[in-house]
Amino acid sequence: MTTQPNNLDQWFDHYADRASGLAASEVRALFAVASRPEVVSLAGGMPYVSALPQDLITDSINRVMRDRGPAALQYGSGQGLPALREQILEVMALEGIQASVDDVVVTTGSQHALELVTKLFINPGDVVLAEGPSYVTALVVFRSFQAEIAHVEMDEFGLVPDSLRAHIAAVRAAGKTIKLLYTVPTFSNPAGVTLSWQRRIDVLEIARENGILVLEDNPYGLLYFDGPPPHAMRSVEEEGVIYLGTFSKTLAPGFRVGWVLAPHAVREKLILANEAAVLSPSSFTQSVISEYMSVADWKGQIGTFRDVYRERRDAMLTALDDYLPDLDWTVPNGGFYVWVTLPNNLDSKSMLPRAVKELVAYTPGTAFYADGNGRSNMRLSFCYPTPEFIREGVRRLSTVVNGERELLNTFSQTAPLTIAPPARSMINPPANLS
Amino acid sequence: MTTQPNNLDQWFDHYADRASGLAASEVRALFAVASRPEVVSLAGGMPYVSALPQDLITDSINRVMRDRGPAALQYGSGQGLPALREQILEVMALEGIQASVDDVVVTTGSQHALELVTKLFINPGDVVLAEGPSYVTALVVFRSFQAEIAHVEMDEFGLVPDSLRAHIAAVRAAGKTIKLLYTVPTFSNPAGVTLSWQRRIDVLEIARENGILVLEDNPYGLLYFDGPPPHAMRSVEEEGVIYLGTFSKTLAPGFRVGWVLAPHAVREKLILANEAAVLSPSSFTQSVISEYMSVADWKGQIGTFRDVYRERRDAMLTALDDYLPDLDWTVPNGGFYVWVTLPNNLDSKSMLPRAVKELVAYTPGTAFYADGNGRSNMRLSFCYPTPEFIREGVRRLSTVVNGERELLNTFSQTAPLTIAPPARSMINPPANLS
Repeated sequence: MTTQPNNLDQWFDHYADRASGLAASEVRALFAVASRPEVVSLAGGMPYVSALPQDLITDSINRVMRDRGPAALQYGSGQGLPALREQILEVMALEGIQASVDDVVVTTGSQHALELVTKLFINPGDVVLAEGPSYVTALVVFRSFQAEIAHVEMDEFGLVPDSLRAHIAAVRAAGKTIKLLYTVPTFSNPAGVTLSWQRRIDVLEIARENGILVLEDNPYGLLYFDGPPPHAMRSVEEEGVIYLGTFSKTLAPGFRVGWVLAPHAVREKLILANEAAVLSPSSFTQSVISEYMSVADWKGQIGTFRDVYRERRDAMLTALDDYLPDLDWTVPNGGFYVWVTLPNNLDSKSMLPRAVKELVAYTPGTAFYADGNGRSNMRLSFCYPTPEFIREGVRRLSTVVNGERELLNTFSQTAPLTIAPPARSMINPPANLS
Repeated sequence: MTTQPNNLDQWFDHYADRASGLAASEVRALFAVASRPEVVSLAGGMPYVSALPQDLITDSINRVMRDRGPAALQYGSGQGLPALREQILEVMALEGIQASVDDVVVTTGSQHALELVTKLFINPGDVVLAEGPSYVTALVVFRSFQAEIAHVEMDEFGLVPDSLRAHIAAVRAAGKTIKLLYTVPTFSNPAGVTLSWQRRIDVLEIARENGILVLEDNPYGLLYFDGPPPHAMRSVEEEGVIYLGTFSKTLAPGFRVGWVLAPHAVREKLILANEAAVLSPSSFTQSVISEYMSVADWKGQIGTFRDVYRERRDAMLTALDDYLPDLDWTVPNGGFYVWVTLPNNLDSKSMLPRAVKELVAYTPGTAFYADGNGRSNMRLSFCYPTPEFIREGVRRLSTVVNGERELLNTFSQTAPLTIAPPARSMINPPANLS
């Protein structure tokens, strides 16, 4: 959204101050481009729903309509369907979380949980600490409530505790209030790295000492490839963590069902916020998911997704090794994303039009920073295209990168060029690839 | 939500200022009580979804899964499914609205459209003008963004233009900024009255003169009983009206699909706000509704609903005539609600526990005012119970009202009592019933 006056908008001076934070993300503009069939999109975060047992889902829907149609078609509770909340406890138990069904609030995807938590806690000017880089639409939400975002450094083991301490001290020295630490500790979006167990303990301890609520966003934790990741942070800290989960990656995003697990007093307020925003999450899609979980081998299905995405991750890493061996990238043990660092002052954002011309799309690193960092990074997602298309996408990308390098070399031999300095990459590639 | 410190909530001092506006509504507390099967609830606003052709809906779902399952299970666009937006134009055309499919944004029920519009326009302290009485959960949303609410008087022809002018002048004289005029002009919730055509023109003219956006919320317009109501305000004013519609009353609230039709520049910002809040509305439920509309006689089904609710409205009016002939009430030509005015200093809020003891529930009038008014009013809904239960509910209510009157008479003959003065009823009953 532009914050410049728009002669075509007679209501321009009516918008709330927070509306200026509602900017179109760089990811958003990409969606239109990347949806053209000839483009190999390594840009999106769409799960491969074609791997779902669609017959089983259809059967579940038919049973819902037959056995409890009027209830599924009706308004529901602002907290969500009790039967589904019980099943959500089973999902979270897989990552070590013990909780009461009373403390789960079902939301319209975990995105809406992010929105509700932010609405509940953030005054204009409050600071949210977030990994650098962070999930782009979380940053959009924080900004839409006028939060300031302070990025904490990451390395291949996730959030760096010393950097966290330093940022807390610096923000407080500037007289600002820190409300939340937002983190995707497992198979992070976009960096693809995982916070080690010891660091989880350290980060929770730092948060506790400083009275900062941890907002743990965990959409990918069950989608591991080489062995289970550390348990969720919420598994060892009940009062200091608001935990977000979702069925969008392990089942289907089209249902828009996620959840928040919050300390008891907080969850009461989240229910009120949920009711104000949507009255109740969809009874229908909640009922379908609950029925599916009660009859399907949903854990086995998550195993199927692991196999699908493992093969795609491997295809991407192999293609990067083959086509772009001198670049740096992270090696995710799960999730959807590889984070690539470009060499030689290449700028991922200005390179994007050339990439689209070569029929490949990615997300520029700047989308994942609130501070302009990330120009030398790009996020490549391996969740949606088949292994063959992933390989072809990376091949096309190598044409773009190599072409851009040649161009820069040519120019640098003929005339001085003003090029933005590369942003410091917060993610060091793992030793075996650097 | 209490705004008092809560020793059990260690995060009490972390909440945003706006959180104090997220109070539990009086309607909310009632839901728990009213859901007991032995209670006749005249309190809720649940549509009678059992009147839907469930087989047709099931067939539509099966076709969606068979023909486009992966798309329906996937993320969608933040603006909503193009095919459904085209069909939404057909729905709105029934109330005289001509619009472009580009200016429709699908939302998670029209409740979420209310939330998004409020987030986009309201700074703390901004004023929203609203009918007195107004839809309770709209008031909750406005307060949750720290709006001040100024109620404009209504009579049996809806919002009173002179009162609107007077309130605009008074609010501006106090140095405050008016951002929105919120109105349910047709079969209003809770008053059950309809803004006349001439007044629609007058109100739009006043809003235009004063640079105030009209937020027209129209969930009930197609559910008329005695003849079509005036066309929507949006039918004659494009740039000055944000229009909200929903499938919750004409199809099923369990799908959580509503929409907003906004001036072009505003709708662009609403899409961004929608994406931040939920990424996209549910592809699945949108697809199901679109499929249902393409194969079912959906206009005929709305006719069926009209017949169902007409019979129930008649049952309620007849029962009121029979059991409580000396009370005043409105006579709705559509929608879900009758607004009753109690005599003799009776207080609907303090009377409620006695009503629940008599196994009947209603919504006290105070829920629909931001200013404490409405103590002598109650909203009776006829949408959900069968005609027999409606009659029985009103019979029980008469026991309560008459018992309360006797009690007051007894006390007033023995000792002076401090009783709150009755709030001024903003709704005069129509001449034929007063």
